[in-house]
Amino acid sequence: MRHTISVLVENKFGVLTRVAGLFSGRGYNIDTLNVAPTQDATTSRMTIVTRGDDSTLEQIVKQLNKLVDVLKVQDFREDEYVDRELVLLKVSVDSKTRSEVMQITDIFRAKIVDVQPKSLSIEVTGGESKIEKFLELMKSFGILDLTRTGKVALPRK
Amino acid sequence: MRHTISVLVENKFGVLTRVAGLFSGRGYNIDTLNVAPTQDATTSRMTIVTRGDDSTLEQIVKQLNKLVDVLKVQDFREDEYVDRELVLLKVSVDSKTRSEVMQITDIFRAKIVDVQPKSLSIEVTGGESKIEKFLELMKSFGILDLTRTGKVALPRK
Repeated sequence: MRHTISVLVENKFGVLTRVAGLFSGRGYNIDTLNVAPTQDATTSRMTIVTRGDDSTLEQIVKQLNKLVDVLKVQDFREDEYVDRELVLLKVSVDSKTRSEVMQITDIFRAKIVDVQPKSLSIEVTGGESKIEKFLELMKSFGILDLTRTGKVALPRK
Repeated sequence: MRHTISVLVENKFGVLTRVAGLFSGRGYNIDTLNVAPTQDATTSRMTIVTRGDDSTLEQIVKQLNKLVDVLKVQDFREDEYVDRELVLLKVSVDSKTRSEVMQITDIFRAKIVDVQPKSLSIEVTGGESKIEKFLELMKSFGILDLTRTGKVALPRK
């Protein structure tokens, strides 16, 4: 099962290594992870998307809560939340396909962020299904390069 | 000095811990980090924004290149690149301030992703200066919650 876990941590040295180590130490695979400061510069938030059985995850969450530098752990399994991801990709184009790629980009409210003679760089944001669909369509033109941020999530309430 | 480092890695177990460990082991602070699969599901790309002196970073890059699971390291110091970040934030509003927050959101081409009686959740993407300016403006209304992905970058060429 897929889980989205948000971990609020003290913005200190080595916390990332310790948190990531808890997952890898238990053989739990991390799909995506990101960490960045919050509105309070002394804390950072990590968002981790992971896959595995529920009981192992419960153990990991317990262990996370025991770490001194961990302030709060949220498992977005049940709560209502909004999640988004950003993907930057470079798509191969020529004079014939450029306009088609631009049309699809427009439909998905994605943005062209760079133009080269044989490629377009595109920024697309959204939930998982929107992004997967966009990438699926772009595959037929040829994805030359791609970098994604991994999901971030905020509780609705 | 600030650096943006992109590390292409084999999508294997524990790579994140090893890479993050290299930075923290040398007392090098990570501002933001993200990791997610690329267009090839067997590889992941990590983007790390870090701060510190150039000579230490050069050593870290050398060590990164020695790791078996590291396929490519790019230091975006000199190269031309496009970078973007996504921020989700919840801003405090009331019947008087809601329209003002919506106007600013519109000007920044940000998107409102959730509405609650006393808050708006907003998605904003862009380069560093745009995002910092937007957050600065939102501070006066009250930022209740914030999560950011950290930068991702693509070379222009």
